[in-house]
Amino acid sequence: MLSGKIKKIGVLTGGGDCPGLNAVIRAIVKTAASYSISVVGILDGFGGLIHNQTWKLTEKDVMGILPRGGTILGTTNRDDPFNYPVIQDGKKVLADVSSQVKNNLHQNELDALIVIGGDGTLKIALGFHQIGVPVIGVPKTIDNDLSATDQTFGFDTALTTATEAIDKLHTTAESHHRVMVLEVMGRYAGWIALQSGLAGGADVILLPEIPFQMSKVIGKIKERRDHGKKFSIIVVAEGAMPLGGHMVVQKHIEDSPDPVRLGGIGNLVGVQVEEGTGMETRVTVLGHLQRGGSPTAFDRILATRYGNGAIHLLNSKKFGEMVCLRTPDIKSVPLSEAVGELRQVSPEGQMVKTAEQIGICLGR
Amino acid sequence: MLSGKIKKIGVLTGGGDCPGLNAVIRAIVKTAASYSISVVGILDGFGGLIHNQTWKLTEKDVMGILPRGGTILGTTNRDDPFNYPVIQDGKKVLADVSSQVKNNLHQNELDALIVIGGDGTLKIALGFHQIGVPVIGVPKTIDNDLSATDQTFGFDTALTTATEAIDKLHTTAESHHRVMVLEVMGRYAGWIALQSGLAGGADVILLPEIPFQMSKVIGKIKERRDHGKKFSIIVVAEGAMPLGGHMVVQKHIEDSPDPVRLGGIGNLVGVQVEEGTGMETRVTVLGHLQRGGSPTAFDRILATRYGNGAIHLLNSKKFGEMVCLRTPDIKSVPLSEAVGELRQVSPEGQMVKTAEQIGICLGR
Amino acid sequence: MLSGKIKKIGVLTGGGDCPGLNAVIRAIVKTAASYSISVVGILDGFGGLIHNQTWKLTEKDVMGILPRGGTILGTTNRDDPFNYPVIQDGKKVLADVSSQVKNNLHQNELDALIVIGGDGTLKIALGFHQIGVPVIGVPKTIDNDLSATDQTFGFDTALTTATEAIDKLHTTAESHHRVMVLEVMGRYAGWIALQSGLAGGADVILLPEIPFQMSKVIGKIKERRDHGKKFSIIVVAEGAMPLGGHMVVQKHIEDSPDPVRLGGIGNLVGVQVEEGTGMETRVTVLGHLQRGGSPTAFDRILATRYGNGAIHLLNSKKFGEMVCLRTPDIKSVPLSEAVGELRQVSPEGQMVKTAEQIGICLGR
Amino acid sequence: MLSGKIKKIGVLTGGGDCPGLNAVIRAIVKTAASYSISVVGILDGFGGLIHNQTWKLTEKDVMGILPRGGTILGTTNRDDPFNYPVIQDGKKVLADVSSQVKNNLHQNELDALIVIGGDGTLKIALGFHQIGVPVIGVPKTIDNDLSATDQTFGFDTALTTATEAIDKLHTTAESHHRVMVLEVMGRYAGWIALQSGLAGGADVILLPEIPFQMSKVIGKIKERRDHGKKFSIIVVAEGAMPLGGHMVVQKHIEDSPDPVRLGGIGNLVGVQVEEGTGMETRVTVLGHLQRGGSPTAFDRILATRYGNGAIHLLNSKKFGEMVCLRTPDIKSVPLSEAVGELRQVSPEGQMVKTAEQIGICLGR
Repeated sequence: MLSGKIKKIGVLTGGGDCPGLNAVIRAIVKTAASYSISVVGILDGFGGLIHNQTWKLTEKDVMGILPRGGTILGTTNRDDPFNYPVIQDGKKVLADVSSQVKNNLHQNELDALIVIGGDGTLKIALGFHQIGVPVIGVPKTIDNDLSATDQTFGFDTALTTATEAIDKLHTTAESHHRVMVLEVMGRYAGWIALQSGLAGGADVILLPEIPFQMSKVIGKIKERRDHGKKFSIIVVAEGAMPLGGHMVVQKHIEDSPDPVRLGGIGNLVGVQVEEGTGMETRVTVLGHLQRGGSPTAFDRILATRYGNGAIHLLNSKKFGEMVCLRTPDIKSVPLSEAVGELRQVSPEGQMVKTAEQIGICLGR
Repeated sequence: MLSGKIKKIGVLTGGGDCPGLNAVIRAIVKTAASYSISVVGILDGFGGLIHNQTWKLTEKDVMGILPRGGTILGTTNRDDPFNYPVIQDGKKVLADVSSQVKNNLHQNELDALIVIGGDGTLKIALGFHQIGVPVIGVPKTIDNDLSATDQTFGFDTALTTATEAIDKLHTTAESHHRVMVLEVMGRYAGWIALQSGLAGGADVILLPEIPFQMSKVIGKIKERRDHGKKFSIIVVAEGAMPLGGHMVVQKHIEDSPDPVRLGGIGNLVGVQVEEGTGMETRVTVLGHLQRGGSPTAFDRILATRYGNGAIHLLNSKKFGEMVCLRTPDIKSVPLSEAVGELRQVSPEGQMVKTAEQIGICLGR
Repeated sequence: MLSGKIKKIGVLTGGGDCPGLNAVIRAIVKTAASYSISVVGILDGFGGLIHNQTWKLTEKDVMGILPRGGTILGTTNRDDPFNYPVIQDGKKVLADVSSQVKNNLHQNELDALIVIGGDGTLKIALGFHQIGVPVIGVPKTIDNDLSATDQTFGFDTALTTATEAIDKLHTTAESHHRVMVLEVMGRYAGWIALQSGLAGGADVILLPEIPFQMSKVIGKIKERRDHGKKFSIIVVAEGAMPLGGHMVVQKHIEDSPDPVRLGGIGNLVGVQVEEGTGMETRVTVLGHLQRGGSPTAFDRILATRYGNGAIHLLNSKKFGEMVCLRTPDIKSVPLSEAVGELRQVSPEGQMVKTAEQIGICLGR
Repeated sequence: MLSGKIKKIGVLTGGGDCPGLNAVIRAIVKTAASYSISVVGILDGFGGLIHNQTWKLTEKDVMGILPRGGTILGTTNRDDPFNYPVIQDGKKVLADVSSQVKNNLHQNELDALIVIGGDGTLKIALGFHQIGVPVIGVPKTIDNDLSATDQTFGFDTALTTATEAIDKLHTTAESHHRVMVLEVMGRYAGWIALQSGLAGGADVILLPEIPFQMSKVIGKIKERRDHGKKFSIIVVAEGAMPLGGHMVVQKHIEDSPDPVRLGGIGNLVGVQVEEGTGMETRVTVLGHLQRGGSPTAFDRILATRYGNGAIHLLNSKKFGEMVCLRTPDIKSVPLSEAVGELRQVSPEGQMVKTAEQIGICLGR
């Protein structure tokens, strides 16, 4: 492990794009400068460490990036140095090239490495920690599904984008007496769906954590219609599943006269609602719009505090740890405890109960 | 034709939802009030005149609706009184129920009718004018594809929504070195695609008016990559077509191992770009989000001026006419000349030339 | 104290306007409906209880109000029933009219009262609790300066408005090589200034909690200029004070050749910066814009949870208590402990330290 | 005058900041590149030509600036080379340093100069044209008060900012039963006030072109109150004047017990409305926020077309001309005809009449 003062560090971003990454990088560079630590940006995730593609970051390089989405360092969902595709005997195999990474760290005289990334990226970071690389983690998940921290940056921006979408769909739904379905991100955790549904005034919210019955959904929409509310808004997390799961979905696709219309779960819900209620139904898949755009004030602040906190961990030699938010403070937690720990919506939790008590149907 | 002072009028909205409809209604009610004309709202397009569903509109009813999308009167793409489905001898046939509409107008003591709607709705309005109903038209097309007016309300809002979407996709495209495809509205005219592409800094824009060659699109993206620009943004109008048209699309679908991925033209372009460049490509279909939301300042003003102008046409007994914008004035034009006259993007026009000169590829 | 099931309650909003009030009202009405409790809205704060101006709230009345700023019940900073101005013997005196309020509560058959308001309003609520009226409090402070809760609704919206303002000032400051001063809300607590300054990338932030030295502020701006950064952004809380306090301000006003230019503290800072640096300086006072607009997703959710939680407190007969956020849960705290407990920015706290470490000057 | 092909040009921005300047610069650089013309940016207006501060602009330099407010070249309201302050015999005098500018143009091998600026800047451009410098003008006025063009970029963004401000003030006005006064830009022309007032649903709009009577304003607000509308919104252009003009203002200031409260015309109106109606009144001065921020889609497109059009004028050797919008085309007009020609709101024009007919009071 490292002894003596830290003079030079590397920073990389990995995994899916997320508003606030630039704010983390900016805070790292500015805080490091206050401790006379120089910062080297590593391009395109761990790939940049394998191929030794780096960029010396000065305060000038991070000027003006606070309000910008994306990452000036580039990011990727690929490139795990412990399982990296190489050609051996004419065949593509997965090899461990972590020693090459260590060499490059050494060659660049990097005393430590800050890794900003999601679960996959942080697992790799933990791997490097375990083979002796001084590593600090900064968590990044737009789905807000990490149990070790109260909140992650990017989530508030995605939530805002999804809520604005619901606001837009509302007026059209009402004018046309339609059912509008919005599919939002959330493969394993339904936080974006639940919170944007609450914020946007949805009538039905479908979550990965609560398998839904289509009969309940259709019943809710009919009940609204019977009370003179001739439109409904349904928010569906991409990972939501009907009770019975994949087999039910598969059966529906096989029975469908037009499987092309059935892309994700949003379309499936849309088709079934239209069949079940006889009401015009339209589906919107929000997709990548949720990962882009200028971060909200909240996300810029949280990201800035994370970046600042990462340098503090460095200075305290708390390697192998990850910054986290324990409201109202930035604290830290070992990567080994944090990675892989999913924070899901509790089906009997307070927020879900609130949703149901104000009349939102969760399909159960 | 009507003689004497107009005392009471009806107003209806028809066709697809469009930001600014409420602003038109508000201006009609307020201007009418200044001439002591009372206004009756007719619900859900011409359907409300067939079934006599009306709502007496006071100034209080239109308070606060200026910034709201949608229409308080409801709207629909169906219900043509000249071709209305009725059951005859146990069979569904299309009948002319226009006399029923005239009866209802008479019964409600409506001296005239203001019809706010798109091409289809205005054609029906023209039909009523031709059978002696005093009618005034207010044009509505979110695609801005009506030749009789410089601009229609709703377009600027849709353009803004599309441009914001491109802004959001930009950062993610850049961070991930991806190609991002955005499919926007525009079945017969590519105004939203062309203008949002210009405003958002797209690299490729595909329009219904200019059949595109995929080879040119792919060439452009490769050329950018060769110059170190590792991402590209493509904006596609939903009505864009490759050179060769439907047959080329059909062939591609037949050849595809996964036809489910190929929904609209946006997906088709996305798949082919990924195949042709080897770069990660993601597609977003903006869809109904373009019809919703609070109208922009421009749209609120234009809609207000249209509503005001419609009452002036009424007072001048210019029945059978439609308000239009001839910058900077609101004027009018006979419905008979206006309906069906599509305003398309000129493939050799100034705006298209500008796009190409600043380096945007139009696929030709 | 009340025995038996609660059947009918009153709700009022008091104090300054705050985005999210309507969301609280909506959640109260909807949650109450799920328990078959009917809700009566009381107009314009406690004034409505004195003059018995009420409005029976149905679910229809709260339809569509979730995204709207303001309060459908009206609000006011005046009208304390314990100190209410009445004419006695031709003179205006402050009288205790609380018995009149109790009578009106009785007459309207209200089993309990939910009071949504700031510190002043909640003190009155506590007064009624102490004379036997079953009261539940919902805290509202746009300044986020209440120690009993992690956050209050409205703050995130105000923060967003202030951050957007800084974003706008940034480009102009940079283009013109100017110093831009933005005065934001925060009389006793500088949360809006501190957080918007962090989120907007301010160079100087002045808070009520940290008396500032103008020499430090001017030094910072000169230092930036010397490093080639020819512009600066200063965010000032309206309650910020120079070291030495009011006397220093007063002296400056007396010495000024043009006291008209010196309105609030923002203008004072602007004039002194211009004098001290010779750089063009412009001041913007954000004012009431911070209280308006559609609440952010965060504020809509928090407000909804507060409204829902208030009904739970009612059902548990936890009168005299106030809902609060203890992340991630909605809990409660006695009004007697909550009112008057100011939550200020800690001059040595983590967020302030972070600001200084990334190079922001706090004037000390 | 220049003969032969243009190879290298200069571009500068002058006058007040305006959203869209960067979009013009970007379009100039990109279009010029398509004609193999290289572009040199001149820093900080004509000052950069006096002091020979330039920046060779490549396509890379203009990447990503389309959505950004401000100008990468810097701008200023000072520095007229025909009247430039120099020290002569120990005294500051205004001298003609235009020959120095010509020398610098020559030294930089600039074949022509594109000047983007407001009326003052374009007058200087015209001066250079008249002494033989090949100049092209691009008009810039956020107030939209130039008669030679249908619209200028920046106006739509300022209008949007002002309209959003009115939207925010609306809810607070309504909740508190207050009168809210918003002072917006417009010294000689009231376009921002008139159009934002129309778009935001103002009740009173005061313009430089229509001297107002305070009695009419107060009458309007009282009339609204009598009809149960307990709030009002007043939009005031900074250049609005009461009937009688400066003397009336001066008298009011002299009579006032608190002249500090009376800054601009907005405050004066606010104080008088409060006195005249007895209603709580609050004033917001929007100020510099109107010049900042990301340009709207409309402004980005218009600015792009202007930049593109400027290169076309260059190529056609139409020196001494200025690009302009004649809907829907970009055309040109001699600078000598364009400068100094103010486009004001016509007091009897269509838009003003519309405002009055929907019930807006213009103070007359």
